[in-house]
Amino acid sequence: MNVHVDQVDSSHGRIYAHYRLHGSTEQIDLVSRALAVEETIEFPLELVTDSDIANNVVGRVEDVESSGESCSEVVISYSVEVTGWELPQLINVLFGNCSMWPGVRLEDVDLPESFLRHFAGPRFGTAGVRDLLGAYERPLLATAIKPMGTSAQGFAEMVFDCAAGGIDLIKDDHGLANQPYADFADRVKRCGEAVRAANDRYGTRALYMPCVNAPLEQLDSRVEIALKAGAGGLLVLPGIVGYDTIRYLSLRTEGRVPIMAHPSMLGSLVVEERQGMAPGLVFGTLPRLAGADLSAFPHAGGRFSFSEKDCSTIAEHCRADLGSSAEIMPAAGGGMTLERVREVAEFYGNDVAILIGGDLHRGSLRSNAESFRARLEETG
Amino acid sequence: MNVHVDQVDSSHGRIYAHYRLHGSTEQIDLVSRALAVEETIEFPLELVTDSDIANNVVGRVEDVESSGESCSEVVISYSVEVTGWELPQLINVLFGNCSMWPGVRLEDVDLPESFLRHFAGPRFGTAGVRDLLGAYERPLLATAIKPMGTSAQGFAEMVFDCAAGGIDLIKDDHGLANQPYADFADRVKRCGEAVRAANDRYGTRALYMPCVNAPLEQLDSRVEIALKAGAGGLLVLPGIVGYDTIRYLSLRTEGRVPIMAHPSMLGSLVVEERQGMAPGLVFGTLPRLAGADLSAFPHAGGRFSFSEKDCSTIAEHCRADLGSSAEIMPAAGGGMTLERVREVAEFYGNDVAILIGGDLHRGSLRSNAESFRARLEETG
Repeated sequence: MNVHVDQVDSSHGRIYAHYRLHGSTEQIDLVSRALAVEETIEFPLELVTDSDIANNVVGRVEDVESSGESCSEVVISYSVEVTGWELPQLINVLFGNCSMWPGVRLEDVDLPESFLRHFAGPRFGTAGVRDLLGAYERPLLATAIKPMGTSAQGFAEMVFDCAAGGIDLIKDDHGLANQPYADFADRVKRCGEAVRAANDRYGTRALYMPCVNAPLEQLDSRVEIALKAGAGGLLVLPGIVGYDTIRYLSLRTEGRVPIMAHPSMLGSLVVEERQGMAPGLVFGTLPRLAGADLSAFPHAGGRFSFSEKDCSTIAEHCRADLGSSAEIMPAAGGGMTLERVREVAEFYGNDVAILIGGDLHRGSLRSNAESFRARLEETG
Repeated sequence: MNVHVDQVDSSHGRIYAHYRLHGSTEQIDLVSRALAVEETIEFPLELVTDSDIANNVVGRVEDVESSGESCSEVVISYSVEVTGWELPQLINVLFGNCSMWPGVRLEDVDLPESFLRHFAGPRFGTAGVRDLLGAYERPLLATAIKPMGTSAQGFAEMVFDCAAGGIDLIKDDHGLANQPYADFADRVKRCGEAVRAANDRYGTRALYMPCVNAPLEQLDSRVEIALKAGAGGLLVLPGIVGYDTIRYLSLRTEGRVPIMAHPSMLGSLVVEERQGMAPGLVFGTLPRLAGADLSAFPHAGGRFSFSEKDCSTIAEHCRADLGSSAEIMPAAGGGMTLERVREVAEFYGNDVAILIGGDLHRGSLRSNAESFRARLEETG
């Protein structure tokens, strides 16, 4: 997953962060040094009297290279200790304050084993999700129940039809929370019953994944309701509740169900190329490190603006070496259509979940689900 | 706080979101309509058969105005019900998916009383924080203990000196988590003792505010440790753990201590003007709605790039009408110096906390703290 593997000596046990700095390259050494200070001690370097702090706590500028007239590639390494081996503080160090520096893009990060071993990582990953579904030779089929405003019973009927039609992963639309139209407990109970009924009747193994974008004091109880109702997974929105909530839910549910990360609110990190973080980190490394088993994002050419390059780098980061972390599944959606199923499957290869939402509702949901399945079995 | 108050009829009890859309204005009506759909039902409008969904659940385009060759101001209203009266879902509706649309900026939002009354808001606010400190006639003095790598005892000595020197709010640097140099429990215990000792000795009422950027399963216990240790407030990083964590902590601590929001990781929302959200929302409305009593951000002319206009709009949003919500205090930092204290106090007026970090360590911390205080008492 790293873009400059030749520069990295992971035996140091340090974290290597690869930044692209846009703007004048004139004082780039000074700016790089300032960045290393900003993300660690945030303190005038000349006032540091403790040599341990100066040498080991402050980030180290490992490499600075001009990559254009107004662009530099800067590698800064951080001691693992500055993170306290905690995900919120890792994110804080990598991009906390410099998110407020225009022109700074975090392009990639190399995490050493001494950091990674503190993280359980995905409990299922691609292989585990395939085991749950008994689906080994083809891309997975995913959909979202929608539109918001539908009754809980209406959603349950959709879940039944989708499962009956052969869809693997049936998630709540990310906008389903606890609205009066279909409150969380009622929706999840009915949808859980529906997926069980369909699986029993048709011998399918579909998973229903409710959205747990909950007020924090209700998070545990919603998850409990979901698990009791027979939810087969959880949908989490790390852009709203933080990546660490994925890790927490993975820990709390003790690996009983897979977790899918949804990209809501994460767009501002990626859409302006001069700023933020690379898509591979936002939709690959970070959710995976937190323990997501599937990472949803908009595939190129849908309603959003992600490029094919963005999408392939996300898929790479879902699959690349990351300590002992299992590979996870990119879930490509954002305006996908039945017509594009084969193309998307060819783009990612078998290890992808293809997420079609609204387009499945043009006509009979169940027939469309069957057609979706048939198209993927042909490609498998 | 709203920028188009004449367009808003709050008797409708709807949420009015003001977006600026950058890019071609040719199909702006179509694009606006697509945005209203994207943020609510995320479903092909032509397939919606239920008139309640079409009329009441889908966002409504209320106004579209060209504001330049390639820029439009679009007002979309949302039914309060789509939020389920929950903060994570409010954020999801306002900017979740459209964060992935380049060129969309959320400029402001008007929240009706029917939404706001579900939120307790800041427990202290400006007036409550002043009451705690007994400081009514001047800006507040704030600092952060740093640098990371200092021992817990070293930090406790800094806290003592700062309190003795007359600083009101002494927060952990936002990079202090649970590192081996000064683990959370030890640091907070010693710093709590130090602030009490100084307050007892000098008759001051300084508050020590530890940073609780914790793994979620440890959040409650860190807060408990902090409160037991005599912490007088909490520092929270909503860009990493979500705005809702502020609300949760305000609820959980039952208003025992004020909360300061820190801007880490929120920069990507604001630094590219064509995308993200306006600073007034990110550092004013949202933390305030969540219940923060103070909102930290970098003042113009420090190490960051915020403009004076950014800063004044943040201060306005900290103070403007927001239902029955108390006004909160902007905490202006990010490279402030003793030399700039008067200028900053003049810029914001009395109701500001001025946050000086590293610059207080040039020479004697205590003398500098005293000098900081003297400068503010002169202006008060």
